[in-house]
Amino acid sequence: MSRWEPNARGRLERAAYELFRDQGYDQTTVADIAKRAGLTERTFFRHYADKREVLFGGAGSLQDELLRALDRVPPELPAIEAVRIAVEAMSTLMHGRRPFSLERQRIVAAHADLQERELIKRATLTAALAQGLQRRGVPEPAASFAAEIGIAAFFVGFGRWFDDPAQRELVEIVHEGFDQLKAVADGSFL
Amino acid sequence: MSRWEPNARGRLERAAYELFRDQGYDQTTVADIAKRAGLTERTFFRHYADKREVLFGGAGSLQDELLRALDRVPPELPAIEAVRIAVEAMSTLMHGRRPFSLERQRIVAAHADLQERELIKRATLTAALAQGLQRRGVPEPAASFAAEIGIAAFFVGFGRWFDDPAQRELVEIVHEGFDQLKAVADGSFL
Repeated sequence: MSRWEPNARGRLERAAYELFRDQGYDQTTVADIAKRAGLTERTFFRHYADKREVLFGGAGSLQDELLRALDRVPPELPAIEAVRIAVEAMSTLMHGRRPFSLERQRIVAAHADLQERELIKRATLTAALAQGLQRRGVPEPAASFAAEIGIAAFFVGFGRWFDDPAQRELVEIVHEGFDQLKAVADGSFL
Repeated sequence: MSRWEPNARGRLERAAYELFRDQGYDQTTVADIAKRAGLTERTFFRHYADKREVLFGGAGSLQDELLRALDRVPPELPAIEAVRIAVEAMSTLMHGRRPFSLERQRIVAAHADLQERELIKRATLTAALAQGLQRRGVPEPAASFAAEIGIAAFFVGFGRWFDDPAQRELVEIVHEGFDQLKAVADGSFL
């Protein structure tokens, strides 16, 4: 087997999620995942530190996209609009990933240590977004509040994505969520 | 030493924080805390499972007060006003506790496991508040959004409390935070 494997990371991810679904997360080993993907364990460890990492490997990409999108927003827009654009850009990374995400959600919900890691991921994203806003010149506490609102819109939307009767993409639910959040904040939603 | 000790819990908490400040959290043992409080280790363990618990012993009281206050809010008030009243009631529990809280904040910031526990506490409070709103008849996702806003106002305010130039009580900072959050959410804060 050659050292370079086309799309090894994607193949490992797909194999892992299939095994998590079919035989359970706890019962799945790195050896199982590598075998199912037709790759070696060594290749697995080149891409992921352990099987938990398969579940959290996307967190860095989300944050990168969030901050890249924020940097592209014209400076004259209000903080909340900048946040909305950045969070929606991040949400588009989930296009077509509902089956993976649903399986992932089930696994995380069943493991206290993974839930903790999810909370850390959320706190890290929020802090990064607040810092990005500060770099745009948004003062505190507005930067923190705008970041909190944006990340809440993302995570509440994420939870609703799985049950959405219209099976919309995450970005549409998050877009709607910003309007709902605004209506809740100004009391026009009773 | 009698089994019943007047205000043992308060004495243990005070002794613990004095030791954490003077000799460091990591260097302080349960035996040290009990000795400083003039109580036995047995009494300590009647009140706290371990020394970490001294730092998180107030979480239950916060949540109780939050939900009690929410239940007292007249049903005709908008969700966000109900949340504001409940979160401000919870914030009044911190009256006069700034020195403890500041020391606690320093310790938590220096220990990854304590930070995780703090995030879990925050997520638990948010979920409890959202459920309380649902019981009032607030539908999803408005209940979750109102809860997210309220708990963000509390925790962002908590962080600012320590540096507040006017040395105001937490509840005043949180009260102001709700106005700022609303201005951020509707874009009137640029």
